[in-house]
Amino acid sequence: MAHAELHTPDLEGSLWFFTRLLGMRETARHQDSIYLRCYEDPYHHSLKLTAHDRPGLGNIGWRTTSPDALQRRATALDQAGLGTGWTTGDIGVGRTFGFTSPDGHPMELVWDIEKYTAPPALQSRILTRRSKRPLHGLPPRRLDHVNLMASDVTTQKELFEHTLGFQTRERVIDAADGGTEIGAWLSVNNLGHEMAVMRDQTGTRGRLHHLAFWYGVPQHNTDAAELCREYGIQIEAGPDVHGITQGAFLYVFEPGGNRIELFGNSGILQFEPDHDTVTWDLADFDTGLAIGGATLPAETYFVYGTPGTDGQDKLLDGWKDRDLVPGGEAP
Amino acid sequence: MAHAELHTPDLEGSLWFFTRLLGMRETARHQDSIYLRCYEDPYHHSLKLTAHDRPGLGNIGWRTTSPDALQRRATALDQAGLGTGWTTGDIGVGRTFGFTSPDGHPMELVWDIEKYTAPPALQSRILTRRSKRPLHGLPPRRLDHVNLMASDVTTQKELFEHTLGFQTRERVIDAADGGTEIGAWLSVNNLGHEMAVMRDQTGTRGRLHHLAFWYGVPQHNTDAAELCREYGIQIEAGPDVHGITQGAFLYVFEPGGNRIELFGNSGILQFEPDHDTVTWDLADFDTGLAIGGATLPAETYFVYGTPGTDGQDKLLDGWKDRDLVPGGEAP
Amino acid sequence: MAHAELHTPDLEGSLWFFTRLLGMRETARHQDSIYLRCYEDPYHHSLKLTAHDRPGLGNIGWRTTSPDALQRRATALDQAGLGTGWTTGDIGVGRTFGFTSPDGHPMELVWDIEKYTAPPALQSRILTRRSKRPLHGLPPRRLDHVNLMASDVTTQKELFEHTLGFQTRERVIDAADGGTEIGAWLSVNNLGHEMAVMRDQTGTRGRLHHLAFWYGVPQHNTDAAELCREYGIQIEAGPDVHGITQGAFLYVFEPGGNRIELFGNSGILQFEPDHDTVTWDLADFDTGLAIGGATLPAETYFVYGTPGTDGQDKLLDGWKDRDLVPGGEAP
Amino acid sequence: MAHAELHTPDLEGSLWFFTRLLGMRETARHQDSIYLRCYEDPYHHSLKLTAHDRPGLGNIGWRTTSPDALQRRATALDQAGLGTGWTTGDIGVGRTFGFTSPDGHPMELVWDIEKYTAPPALQSRILTRRSKRPLHGLPPRRLDHVNLMASDVTTQKELFEHTLGFQTRERVIDAADGGTEIGAWLSVNNLGHEMAVMRDQTGTRGRLHHLAFWYGVPQHNTDAAELCREYGIQIEAGPDVHGITQGAFLYVFEPGGNRIELFGNSGILQFEPDHDTVTWDLADFDTGLAIGGATLPAETYFVYGTPGTDGQDKLLDGWKDRDLVPGGEAP
Repeated sequence: MAHAELHTPDLEGSLWFFTRLLGMRETARHQDSIYLRCYEDPYHHSLKLTAHDRPGLGNIGWRTTSPDALQRRATALDQAGLGTGWTTGDIGVGRTFGFTSPDGHPMELVWDIEKYTAPPALQSRILTRRSKRPLHGLPPRRLDHVNLMASDVTTQKELFEHTLGFQTRERVIDAADGGTEIGAWLSVNNLGHEMAVMRDQTGTRGRLHHLAFWYGVPQHNTDAAELCREYGIQIEAGPDVHGITQGAFLYVFEPGGNRIELFGNSGILQFEPDHDTVTWDLADFDTGLAIGGATLPAETYFVYGTPGTDGQDKLLDGWKDRDLVPGGEAP
Repeated sequence: MAHAELHTPDLEGSLWFFTRLLGMRETARHQDSIYLRCYEDPYHHSLKLTAHDRPGLGNIGWRTTSPDALQRRATALDQAGLGTGWTTGDIGVGRTFGFTSPDGHPMELVWDIEKYTAPPALQSRILTRRSKRPLHGLPPRRLDHVNLMASDVTTQKELFEHTLGFQTRERVIDAADGGTEIGAWLSVNNLGHEMAVMRDQTGTRGRLHHLAFWYGVPQHNTDAAELCREYGIQIEAGPDVHGITQGAFLYVFEPGGNRIELFGNSGILQFEPDHDTVTWDLADFDTGLAIGGATLPAETYFVYGTPGTDGQDKLLDGWKDRDLVPGGEAP
Repeated sequence: MAHAELHTPDLEGSLWFFTRLLGMRETARHQDSIYLRCYEDPYHHSLKLTAHDRPGLGNIGWRTTSPDALQRRATALDQAGLGTGWTTGDIGVGRTFGFTSPDGHPMELVWDIEKYTAPPALQSRILTRRSKRPLHGLPPRRLDHVNLMASDVTTQKELFEHTLGFQTRERVIDAADGGTEIGAWLSVNNLGHEMAVMRDQTGTRGRLHHLAFWYGVPQHNTDAAELCREYGIQIEAGPDVHGITQGAFLYVFEPGGNRIELFGNSGILQFEPDHDTVTWDLADFDTGLAIGGATLPAETYFVYGTPGTDGQDKLLDGWKDRDLVPGGEAP
Repeated sequence: MAHAELHTPDLEGSLWFFTRLLGMRETARHQDSIYLRCYEDPYHHSLKLTAHDRPGLGNIGWRTTSPDALQRRATALDQAGLGTGWTTGDIGVGRTFGFTSPDGHPMELVWDIEKYTAPPALQSRILTRRSKRPLHGLPPRRLDHVNLMASDVTTQKELFEHTLGFQTRERVIDAADGGTEIGAWLSVNNLGHEMAVMRDQTGTRGRLHHLAFWYGVPQHNTDAAELCREYGIQIEAGPDVHGITQGAFLYVFEPGGNRIELFGNSGILQFEPDHDTVTWDLADFDTGLAIGGATLPAETYFVYGTPGTDGQDKLLDGWKDRDLVPGGEAP
C-alpha cells in the first residue's frame, strides 16, 4: 500500500490531528487537499486529506512490484469488470490504473511514484530512515494497512486473491450461520495483513472501517491514548493486542469522523511459503478481538464506518464537544 | 503494608497462579496456609494463602514506623473501639495488635518482623534486591496496595486518617447525590495510595475489592494479560492506566475467586508536604477509571468483591472452565 | 527538591534542548534567566536557565516539610557554619535561607513557594496532573534528583544527614583503599535518592555531575536517545539500568555543557522504616553502574563535571559540531 | 531460515541457557544433540545443540519457496562449486541439499520439513501461535537471523545474491581503504536482514558471529539483560538499537561460548520493490552500530567468533566464573 486519501468534513481538525498529535509532516497542498507523510514513509506522501461533506475513503493506492505487473494486474481487473481506466496521477504519483473493489471502494494501482528525499535539515543519520523523527506529536513511522467494510466479505476477498495476488492469512466464520465469512485478513508480504475486510452489518457498501499507522513500539500506543485523552480525541478501544494478527491496537476517531488505528507492533510475521489460512469461529472470537481485557464496543466497532449511515450522525455529534486545541500550543 | 492473607476455596489453583504464573516463591507452609513472597519484598512473606470455604481477606498487616508508634496506634484503635487485642504473631511475624476496620475488615499492626535473607544461590548481585528475579512466571517485584469495599466510604476513610496517619490523596464524590463519597485513595508515603476504599453498592460489609502487586514496568502488564489469556485466568479489565493515581492496571481473578491487580508503574508520586486532596465528580469519572479505552465492566467491577454475595456465585461458576495447567508445565 | 538553576554559556542552545527536545514549558523570563517546568512539576518552575560564561550549578532549592522545619534547618546550617543568610526569593519563590554545601555547592531552603496552576487550555482531565502533557518534544514529567561531585564524599554526606534529615540508602567504598567512600545516594523520602554525591577525582570543588528528570516509563529513555542522536545532542551512556538505585538512565550533555540524566523509572522504592544502608565495594562495582551491557566512559563519567576543569575544554569543543536545529522545525 | 545447529563444549550449560533462561522447549534428543524450538517457530525445531569440543556453527538450514526452487537452487550451487550433495535429512527435516558458503560455513537447503503441532495442553488460543507462551524463562518468539564472519565479505555476499536470491539491504564500506566492504545485511523478504556478513579481521574462515532470536518487544531485551546479569550470563553489549537495520539488540555469550543476539523489535521493514542498497561509510559508523550510547567492545565484537582463535581462549576463560545455576531453581 503506497497511499490513501481520506475525506473529511473538518479539514482543519483532521490536519491538527495528523500533524500536531500524530506528528506527520505536510509535503504539499493543492486545492482542497493536503498531502502528508510519516517520517519513514518511502514515498512523497502516504496520506491525502481532502475536504468533503462526509468522511470516508477517497482512494487507496497500491504499488505493483514492477511496470509489467502493473499492466498485468490492470488487465485482470478490466477482465473482472472493475477497472475504471488510466489516470494521469497526482502530486508525487505517476499514471495510475483506477478500479473499484467489488463492494465499491475506490482504488488505484501505480508503479511510477516519487520517492521522498528529505531536505538537508531533515535528513537522518539513520540511513534507512527517510527523514528525522519529528519533535512534535507522537509520530508513527509509516502507513500500515487498511480495513474495509464490505456487504459480502467472501466476494471482496476472492477478487483480491485472484486479481492482485493477496493471500488470506486469517478469517472469521460464523459456524452457526453456515460458515458465512465475517472477516478476512489479507497480505502480499510477510505482514499479518495489509488489508482486512469485515462484514458491514448495515448492508451499506464501500465504507471504510479504519486506516492504520505503525509505531512498532507497544508503549507508543499507551502514549498515544494518553495524548488523545488529554486533547479531546475520542478513543474507541485499546490499547490492547488483537489475537487475530497479534497486532497491538488503539482505535480513535480523527476529528473528521474516520476511525484510525495506531499499530504498536508488527504482530505475527509470516515466513512459511506454504502456510495455511487460520480460521476463527465467531463463537471463540473473544481472544481474536483482544488478548487482554479490552472490549470492542458493539454499538460502534461492528457497525460504524465512514461515510456513516443516517443513524450514525448522532454518534458523530457526541464527538463534537472535544476540547481540541486547533491551533496547537506554544512551548 | 507488610503482608496480606487471602482465603481461597481452591488452594492448589491459587498456589499455581501465584507461583507458576506470577513467579512468587514459597517461604513456609503451616497447616492450611502457604507463605509466599515477591523477589523484592523485604520481609519473610507478603502473601499468606489459607484454605477456606469462601474467598476473601484473612488479614492485612501494617508495619508501624517504630515500636513506640505501634503502642501509640494501638491505643488510638482501642479508643476507637476497634482493637481486638495483642497476638503472638505468625511465622516471620512477631507480636501484633489486631483490629477491624469500621466496615469489618480484619487487620493488624506489627513492628517486630523477620526480614528476608536469601540463601546464597538466590542472592542477587543487585544489592537492593532481596533475592534474584525468578526464572519462572512473570514475577511482580512487591506487594503494592489493597482496595477494600465498604458500605460507608467516609467512615472507613476518616478512621484511617485519624488513628493511623493516612492522608487522602484522591476521592470521588457523587455531586448529584449530595456529595456522597464513592471512593477514596489513601497513603502514608509518596505512593498515590497504599489503601483504597470503594463503596459496596450491595451493602455487604468487610469485603475485599482487590489486592495489588507491583511490576513497575508497563510492558509487564501486557505480558501478564497474555499469559492469563493463554492459561485460562479470567481477565476483568486492562491493561490500561487509571486517571486516579495514574497507575497502570490489569485486573484478573485468581482461581480462588479473589480479584488481583497487577500494577505496571508507580503512578503519580506525591512529594508536596502540603498537597491538597484531589476530588473527582462521578459525572467526570471516565478519565478517572481509564485514560485509554478500557471499560471496567459494571456487572463485576462495581459489585463483585470477596467473599461474594449469593448472586455472585454464578459469576464464579463461569470462571471454572479455565484451561489452567495445575501442575505447571515441563520445559 | 523544588528547583534547580543551571548556568549555561549557550542559552539559546540550552533553551532549545529543554523546550524543543524535552518539551518543557516556559513560565517566566527575567534578565538573563528563563524559568521552565515539566508538565507534572507542582511548582512555578523546576528549572531556571541563566546565561553565564561557564556551565554549572547556580542553585538547588529544597522545600522543607513546614515553616517550622525551615527555621529549624536554617539554625542547624548556621551552626554548621554553612548558612549565607535569608533572601527575598525569586519569581515564584518566597524568602529562602541560603547556604553552601561543605564542598561549595550553592543551595537554599524554602517553604513559601508558588504552586503552579495551568491556564484553562492547558488544564488536564487527569486531575493529579498539573498541566496537559505537551505535544512537542519528549517531555519528562518532573525534576527528579541531583548528583553532585565532591572532593570529600563523607563530609558532604554527613552534613546532609545531620542538618537536613537525609538518609544514606546506598554507598560505594574502595575497600582496597581503606574503605574511602567513593559515592553516596541520599533520600528524605521513598525514592532511592534525591541527591547523590560522587568523589571528584580532579580535586575540584563545588561541581555538578548531573541533574535528572523523570519519565517513569523505560521506553521513553530509548525514545530520548533516538531524538538526541537525530538532533545532534551528545549521548554519554545509556539507555541502561543502574544496579545502584535500580534507576533506568540515559546521560546526555545539553548544549551548554551540563550533563543531564533522563530517568526512565523510579528504581527501587524504600518503604522499610528501619532499612540499612547498602554498601557496594568498588571491586564489584560493575553491576552497580549498569545491569545491562552499558559502559560509563572513564574519560568523561568519572572526571567531567561543570564547570569543567581546564583540560575538559577540549571535550566540550568536540560537542560543538552537533547538527542541532536551533529554531526547531516546522511541521 | 528454518533452523540452525550450534556446537557447544558445555552442552548442559547451553541447554540451561536456552531452556531455563530463554524458555525454549525441547522437542527431541538424539545421540549428542538436543532439538529446541521457540513458541512461535513454525517447524519441529529451530535450534539443534550438539556437544562438540569447540563452539561454532554446525549448520544453517534455509527453506526454499517450493520444491522446484529447491532443485533450481541446488543446481546453481553445484555450478558454483559449493554443493556437497543431497542428505536424508534429520529429525523433523526431510532430504536436504548441503553446501558450504564461500567462506566455509556449513549450510543446507530444504523443502520437506515437519510443521510443529502442539500437544493439546500446549495449544494456544491465539491461533497463529504454534504453542502457548512458556511460563519459564523469558521466551523469544522465533529464530530471527544469523550473522557470519567472513574473510571476504564481497565474495560471500555475491554468492548469496546470485545463487539464492538474497538482496543486500545495507552495507558498510571503508572509504579510506578503497571502498572495501566491511559488512553486508541481506534479506529475501521484508525483514531488514536474515543474514549478515561481517569481515573477520583475524583472517579465520567459516566462523559464526552470532545467531539471533526475536522478541518483538523492546522491553524484553531489558528484561533479558537483567536475567543474564542475575544468573551469570556474560553480556557483551546492549540493550540498545542498531542504526543499521534499526534492530533492538542485546548480545550475550551462551555458556558454550557462542554469541547470541536477542532482538527486541523487527527493525526497519522494507516494502519497496525497487529499493536501493544503503551504504554506510566506516567513518560514520557510530550511528550504524548504536543509536543510543552503547559501545560495542573492540576487543570482542569485531574479532571474537566461534570457534575462537587461539588467542581467544583467554577471553572464554573469564566467562567460566559465572554464578550460573545449572539445575534451574525451584519455585
